[in-house]
Amino acid sequence: MEYVVDLNCDMGESFGDYTLGKDNEVIKYITSSNIACGFHASDPNVMERTVRLCREHHVMAGAHPGYPDLMGFGRRFMDAAEEDLVNYVIYQSGALGGFLALHGMSLQHIKMHGALYNSLVNNDKAYLRIVEAAAKAFGNVIFLTLGTIKAAELKKACRQKGIRVALEGFPDRMYTDEGELLPRKYKEAVLKDPELIARRAVRMVKEKGVESINGRWIAMELDTMCIHGDNMESIEAAQKIREYSIAEGITVKPLCEFV
Amino acid sequence: MEYVVDLNCDMGESFGDYTLGKDNEVIKYITSSNIACGFHASDPNVMERTVRLCREHHVMAGAHPGYPDLMGFGRRFMDAAEEDLVNYVIYQSGALGGFLALHGMSLQHIKMHGALYNSLVNNDKAYLRIVEAAAKAFGNVIFLTLGTIKAAELKKACRQKGIRVALEGFPDRMYTDEGELLPRKYKEAVLKDPELIARRAVRMVKEKGVESINGRWIAMELDTMCIHGDNMESIEAAQKIREYSIAEGITVKPLCEFV
Amino acid sequence: MEYVVDLNCDMGESFGDYTLGKDNEVIKYITSSNIACGFHASDPNVMERTVRLCREHHVMAGAHPGYPDLMGFGRRFMDAAEEDLVNYVIYQSGALGGFLALHGMSLQHIKMHGALYNSLVNNDKAYLRIVEAAAKAFGNVIFLTLGTIKAAELKKACRQKGIRVALEGFPDRMYTDEGELLPRKYKEAVLKDPELIARRAVRMVKEKGVESINGRWIAMELDTMCIHGDNMESIEAAQKIREYSIAEGITVKPLCEFV
Amino acid sequence: MEYVVDLNCDMGESFGDYTLGKDNEVIKYITSSNIACGFHASDPNVMERTVRLCREHHVMAGAHPGYPDLMGFGRRFMDAAEEDLVNYVIYQSGALGGFLALHGMSLQHIKMHGALYNSLVNNDKAYLRIVEAAAKAFGNVIFLTLGTIKAAELKKACRQKGIRVALEGFPDRMYTDEGELLPRKYKEAVLKDPELIARRAVRMVKEKGVESINGRWIAMELDTMCIHGDNMESIEAAQKIREYSIAEGITVKPLCEFV
Repeated sequence: MEYVVDLNCDMGESFGDYTLGKDNEVIKYITSSNIACGFHASDPNVMERTVRLCREHHVMAGAHPGYPDLMGFGRRFMDAAEEDLVNYVIYQSGALGGFLALHGMSLQHIKMHGALYNSLVNNDKAYLRIVEAAAKAFGNVIFLTLGTIKAAELKKACRQKGIRVALEGFPDRMYTDEGELLPRKYKEAVLKDPELIARRAVRMVKEKGVESINGRWIAMELDTMCIHGDNMESIEAAQKIREYSIAEGITVKPLCEFV
Repeated sequence: MEYVVDLNCDMGESFGDYTLGKDNEVIKYITSSNIACGFHASDPNVMERTVRLCREHHVMAGAHPGYPDLMGFGRRFMDAAEEDLVNYVIYQSGALGGFLALHGMSLQHIKMHGALYNSLVNNDKAYLRIVEAAAKAFGNVIFLTLGTIKAAELKKACRQKGIRVALEGFPDRMYTDEGELLPRKYKEAVLKDPELIARRAVRMVKEKGVESINGRWIAMELDTMCIHGDNMESIEAAQKIREYSIAEGITVKPLCEFV
Repeated sequence: MEYVVDLNCDMGESFGDYTLGKDNEVIKYITSSNIACGFHASDPNVMERTVRLCREHHVMAGAHPGYPDLMGFGRRFMDAAEEDLVNYVIYQSGALGGFLALHGMSLQHIKMHGALYNSLVNNDKAYLRIVEAAAKAFGNVIFLTLGTIKAAELKKACRQKGIRVALEGFPDRMYTDEGELLPRKYKEAVLKDPELIARRAVRMVKEKGVESINGRWIAMELDTMCIHGDNMESIEAAQKIREYSIAEGITVKPLCEFV
Repeated sequence: MEYVVDLNCDMGESFGDYTLGKDNEVIKYITSSNIACGFHASDPNVMERTVRLCREHHVMAGAHPGYPDLMGFGRRFMDAAEEDLVNYVIYQSGALGGFLALHGMSLQHIKMHGALYNSLVNNDKAYLRIVEAAAKAFGNVIFLTLGTIKAAELKKACRQKGIRVALEGFPDRMYTDEGELLPRKYKEAVLKDPELIARRAVRMVKEKGVESINGRWIAMELDTMCIHGDNMESIEAAQKIREYSIAEGITVKPLCEFV
């Protein structure tokens, strides 16, 4: 059996004079980049710079739209209407599209950010409305969502409409018994040990699942794994995830080549 | 001799609960719409709505990017770096591009807004840097600028690089002896009488010029005229400009058909 | 028995070039003004202008802080931490305090706006944390909240801590059977008939209650009534509320004189 | 002859998830803190935290208002009307006042930030309009400005109106021959060597002047010196400035004690 996975990372989250993330480091280990679009983080200068970085490293680029909440980094749920959410995603992805076009690249995927991502995991209706509109606007783009068993059904339903969905796992995030990400307010939410994270990543791909915080086995489907570039520990984890994956016979390549 | 002109209007300048402009009225008289992109005015919902309005009325759509200054409506000069300006224009035009794609339309033109427009009239270097980047990103798009004699030279130089520039006149704005727009802080800056404005518009096209505030003749080149939809008076002027133009044998059609 | 009530209205909700509300009209009928502070609406120029208007009309001024959501006019719930909410209220009320001091006035009250107001009606813990901090910062200020029977208890508990709470009714808003405001997304949410609204207002004060959407009697306590100045209908309602109240023997005076 | 000087530093310039400046280090060496107020940097949470830090270290607090330009960190000139500037300063200083009141502190001073500071150095009319309004709103507050010979005259004129002005020097900034700060876009603009900066600081106070970039002697008056806490080098400079000043017989104390 052949194992294939994409490695994605949130990038371009600096803003003005403020710097966040070790983009120049983590870019070496990923195949897809989720680029912030100015609502929860980033600004036009940062976006241009980040797109350029992706091109130089032959990393595929995607939009990472969030709630219009710079002060809260898009991590706070906002009770916005579905119509608002659709338009926020179109706006942000279109803006990124401008920089991609400037550098001769195209939009591979769209991955919602933070609280918007999480709220849509439990709201298929809103999720579908957004991806249908964005697919209409941006063509053959791929949409990420959390790789639950339920989402695997959603993926199939979307494929029948000609919409591509990719399922995502988070090797450095703790899962609840329900298969969702343990919110960041809990201290166990984010794993730190690079060795542990990398072994967990390999297992996720090959065994199609992960252990929850209470030791329960959570089955999942997986096209891509989210890694982080926040600090040196997460860079080390990123490097090990890539190395161990390849060593274990997993093909690491961008989403557009297999989803 | 054949006379041709495009009629453009700034639109989609509402924001959230705030409404500005009689877009539904003025849309009937124009051939090109300059759509605000969220920096000096507008938001994603307003942009979607405005693009839809253009499609329904078969009006060509362009981006109307401004300084990041919602509080000042983009009317205050900001001493931003050229690189910033390039990226602000790419960002905003790209964002509009998302909504255009959603509705099966494409970006006809880019017209800078307010203080950004004015500052570029006297800064060819920055103007060229912006239009070259935007032409690279958005292809065969048309860029507007004030129709001075000097700008007619710029237009030629751009054409040789494959970049399309359209020259603009403002029938309801007073001109200085130097051929620039009299700033809005002067009470004579904006003409109000629809009849006067419409006669001025026809003369602008047929005689290729306008009288300055001191009665001096200002020669100009003209591809498009900017009309307004702020209030009922300007709507009346818009209607008359269109009627008188046609009655005087001027062909009114969108920029993309003749620039 | 003596009846006393304050009449309050949300004001100063314009922003930059955008105008909202007939502040110059409604100011004639009220005793307390809730002034937007720049997060959900308003800007420094509008705040200065609104404070000046209050001074000219001898109307008491209060802060009207909201979520940091200009695009959504503060009407969308945001899942912000209690600490954030405390600091948002301190920031906005302090900013208004600057303009009040400039005009020789002081802060009479604080009334939260929109979704923040509504979410706190059901969250005594967060409400208390905010009012305790704001009372520490702004001294003998009065805090508004919805005049439910439950809130009457809260008012007593606050008084024992030396914190003044005023209970509010909304004569032009429909109530649910649970005594809360019917959300604005329902078409019955806002009453329009000035005559009906004014009669309802008088009854609210004298009979201490209101009929819910299903005809159930909702008991309430009432120190102040919220009126609106959005359009000519609401101005007419404001005028009638004041006239009918006085005609029915209700004393209309600002909160600081009796709470 | 007795030498007295205040040491001030810009602080609280973090925003949301973004961290800037080593406030916890530099606070040890200063007597006055200029706290960002949310327009060019900072947010309500950061402001509360920074005020608390000042209280713990017995450092006097001032407002550091800037242009409404978070993306440009308030470093870009904006052609705003005088009335706008007045209201921006009142708004921001008032907002800080809320947090100061919460922590039992008061507003010692107001120092404009970045491009606003610089533009006012050459615009006495606008400067006076702002300080007169702010003095009316905030009482006996002190206003900082660049310590040129011309400004010494301005200081005297203000004192006669009962307004306190403090003159400022920048030991780690290069001066032009005209006695202004060399703009940050020049590579010589900011000195880095802590030893050099500290010796320059002492000389500024005792010899009342500094050498310009071309070696010309620039006479100045000085009540306070601006030091920085951006990185470890500037922290070292801050420490040395304080140590050398004291060793050279200069009394270091907050502005409110001697201006």
